[in-house]
Amino acid sequence: MNLSEYLVREQQRIEREMERLVPAESAAPETIHRAMRYSLFAGGKRIRPILCLAAAEAIADNSPGVETAACSLEFIHTYSLIHDDLPALDNDDYRRGKLTCHKVFGDAMAILAGDALLTLAFETLAKMDAVSAERKIRIIAELATASGTVGGMIGGQVADLEGEGKPPDAGLLESIHRAKTGALLRVSVLMGAIYAGADNGQLRAISDFGEHIGLAFQIVDDILDVEESSQALGKTAGKDAQQKKITFPAVYGLDESRRMAEQERERAHQSLAPFADRARRLSELADLIVHRKA
Amino acid sequence: MNLSEYLVREQQRIEREMERLVPAESAAPETIHRAMRYSLFAGGKRIRPILCLAAAEAIADNSPGVETAACSLEFIHTYSLIHDDLPALDNDDYRRGKLTCHKVFGDAMAILAGDALLTLAFETLAKMDAVSAERKIRIIAELATASGTVGGMIGGQVADLEGEGKPPDAGLLESIHRAKTGALLRVSVLMGAIYAGADNGQLRAISDFGEHIGLAFQIVDDILDVEESSQALGKTAGKDAQQKKITFPAVYGLDESRRMAEQERERAHQSLAPFADRARRLSELADLIVHRKA
Repeated sequence: MNLSEYLVREQQRIEREMERLVPAESAAPETIHRAMRYSLFAGGKRIRPILCLAAAEAIADNSPGVETAACSLEFIHTYSLIHDDLPALDNDDYRRGKLTCHKVFGDAMAILAGDALLTLAFETLAKMDAVSAERKIRIIAELATASGTVGGMIGGQVADLEGEGKPPDAGLLESIHRAKTGALLRVSVLMGAIYAGADNGQLRAISDFGEHIGLAFQIVDDILDVEESSQALGKTAGKDAQQKKITFPAVYGLDESRRMAEQERERAHQSLAPFADRARRLSELADLIVHRKA
Repeated sequence: MNLSEYLVREQQRIEREMERLVPAESAAPETIHRAMRYSLFAGGKRIRPILCLAAAEAIADNSPGVETAACSLEFIHTYSLIHDDLPALDNDDYRRGKLTCHKVFGDAMAILAGDALLTLAFETLAKMDAVSAERKIRIIAELATASGTVGGMIGGQVADLEGEGKPPDAGLLESIHRAKTGALLRVSVLMGAIYAGADNGQLRAISDFGEHIGLAFQIVDDILDVEESSQALGKTAGKDAQQKKITFPAVYGLDESRRMAEQERERAHQSLAPFADRARRLSELADLIVHRKA
């Protein structure tokens, strides 16, 4: 199976599982379930859940139920997009080429739908039935930390907001992005590895891999915001410069940013050495993250 | 020790523990930690955490670390207030007699501070060290369900928003409040009981108790919104009628609402029969909930 076929198969696996986990549109109160599903099923690439599945594969042949854990990552990612797009934050009208949640359902419902997806992520993990309580607790602790204020996603968003208009600074840039995007990508692979029973050495290697792809992902995101059209991205392009965000191209220039992304990709590959062939999909995903066009 | 002394002691116990659990104002990014602490330490009565402590007492003489679990309830409660007060939702400028979070820190930071407290609740529970992984998982599953969309707090908020202006209906009223306020009060005592090692029979009794005080709490809240001044409440009074909310006084009138609150108080007491003297504090808390003036 080539990578495209693998991605389609795993996307479908994730979407089937999300379908099962998220209350139906007909479940009361209907509006919030419609809002949650609208944003969840708006055509995301499911990068984070697929990283989780691929990391589990690198550790064990078969990890029944790991797709449930993987979905919680998509819930967290989607809640963060819904809240980020609100008028009070980035004020975006389009996401993945569709109207954003608050444009369709209003600000109040978008705030509550984000809260609900965040809550559902932890509910989902706590209620998994094919894995021990010990592993569930480790997974929940890692996900909560990666989503939180200290070195986690929310902390990165705050630092990013507060960095607007500040002089471009390499240290600040890396700390923002390590938290804002990197923490959730790193925890995606970590969760898959914990679920599959990785030992400490394996967890360290997987964590290193996650750090490198996390940084690579954000560098490429910043480059694409400069290079691509809004149509290709499915969201407003050029917003970083407009909002005076601290980005990799702003600090290092485009050429050096591209070189840095390549370097992170190579380091990511090196982190996978202990897994040899078992990490083939993770390795391909690192390439995909760096070479994507949207 | 009389009830007032007990409340002061337990409030202090909870506030010390929150002080330990929430990142310091000096921890980066500072703004969000200031916003989280501003709302957490704005003088709440800590009813939910104290219910959790008192429920643990009804089951076991000593439950080391139960105050950590109790704090997660205050994190959830406070996040829900911060988001509820936003202009897009209830648009309240005052809470507990102080400016609301978004009035001081802006809407963006209030949204993120709410998200962060919600996340911290689950991080805190997952990282508790004095209780088994099995009990932690049960506690997390119960709290997430009680906070979620199906019969939980968010579901109740949505139903409440959507009920505005609708004709007063007894069935809708009870389902809104059972979810909006009742679920979190019920889970407060349930979490304490699970933490302390309650058996299934004890859990059923505690859960019944929680349902009755949950309903009583909301009936009294609705009555106070009609009867008391904004100054006594520390928030805007009379907002329910102004927003055409479905409330107990609107459906049943004030006298009948008072009678219903009394009835729930009696039922709550009856639920505690199996615990005899061990449930003295729970019993007193039920009285306090019904007889409070703010």
